[in-house]
Amino acid sequence: MAEVKLLGVRGSPFVVRVVLALKLKGIEYEFLEENLGNKSELLLKYNPIHKKVPVLVHNEKPVSESLVIVEYIDEAFKGNPILPTEPYQRALARFWTNFIDDKIFSAIRKAVFTLDEVEREKGVEEALEALQFLENDLKTKFFGGDEIGFLDIAALIIAYWVPIFQEVRGLQIFTSEKFPKLYNWSQELINHPIIKENLPPREPLLAFFKARIEGLSASK
Amino acid sequence: MAEVKLLGVRGSPFVVRVVLALKLKGIEYEFLEENLGNKSELLLKYNPIHKKVPVLVHNEKPVSESLVIVEYIDEAFKGNPILPTEPYQRALARFWTNFIDDKIFSAIRKAVFTLDEVEREKGVEEALEALQFLENDLKTKFFGGDEIGFLDIAALIIAYWVPIFQEVRGLQIFTSEKFPKLYNWSQELINHPIIKENLPPREPLLAFFKARIEGLSASK
Repeated sequence: MAEVKLLGVRGSPFVVRVVLALKLKGIEYEFLEENLGNKSELLLKYNPIHKKVPVLVHNEKPVSESLVIVEYIDEAFKGNPILPTEPYQRALARFWTNFIDDKIFSAIRKAVFTLDEVEREKGVEEALEALQFLENDLKTKFFGGDEIGFLDIAALIIAYWVPIFQEVRGLQIFTSEKFPKLYNWSQELINHPIIKENLPPREPLLAFFKARIEGLSASK
Repeated sequence: MAEVKLLGVRGSPFVVRVVLALKLKGIEYEFLEENLGNKSELLLKYNPIHKKVPVLVHNEKPVSESLVIVEYIDEAFKGNPILPTEPYQRALARFWTNFIDDKIFSAIRKAVFTLDEVEREKGVEEALEALQFLENDLKTKFFGGDEIGFLDIAALIIAYWVPIFQEVRGLQIFTSEKFPKLYNWSQELINHPIIKENLPPREPLLAFFKARIEGLSASK
């Protein structure tokens, strides 16, 4: 049995964060594909609280939650640091990764996957405001500097998934006109060899999220 | 000027987390009391995104969000580690501290500070379910083992604030009958000398949250 296993689904931005951390560290692992409509015994055993992917299993010990897993990988395996090494820079990276999940992603989810139109509009406004903070913070090629780091991995959801989400809804939230620095960063990021190799293909994702939104309206 | 400053209010469980981390590390600091009804220029300058306390300012550099600040303090100042040192234990501590803020505290807030009664009942149920997971996880005197650690600091909100919240609402969520291990832990924790010295007095807190709930109903 492999020492490192990853329970996940290929299309999830949260799972891809862990895949990238493993690849950046050069760690061999076994990918166990989950069917979220019929969760495996293994998933329920290893993440009984949230019952969600990703779950990393290292020597039979499970770790859940993508950002917790990425920090774990960075601390448990030496070489190629993912987080900055300086304490203040580490704190900033943690602050911004939380900001992405708590503010940007939750606003985007509201803007895209809510049935109520007023709520969706509120989501768009919140997303624009939150993205502006991130745009203002970007000073280097990647958030990690010249190399991809913790915040880039966390923010990949903006670079790759958000354009798909907004296409599905016909929204213009994350655009090169509104966020030129972030947009350039997003192009650098998704064309980085390690990222490019590990992104799920775009068309099936688009079809998946289209179906999900149609399902939303159908169950109105 | 002091090298370390803390912007906060004395009654906030999130601010007290930072106070405790500083005390456990033996770090001298200056406490700058905020008036949240009229936020200082300093707060708006140092935390322009969330405009919330606590903010730690170390050598003029600000860090926001209580858990990010506690990790920063642990990494920037040597001695008396607050987080475990072993990577897997660190990951578990981070998982559970997130669980406290995302699941337990948000359920408690819903159970106590929501106007809608159905929502409040849902909050009570969610809080009971979430607390049970934490009860099951407690195997030692403190979550940190024999000594107070990261998770104890984060969970102090359950030991000290939740009993106040439920008294205000006449609820029975966190009781010695329902959660005997957590209840014993809570008594050990609030009687630990460093914690005891730094807790805000109970009566004013009780009065403050009573007024807050009366304000809720008044603005119905």
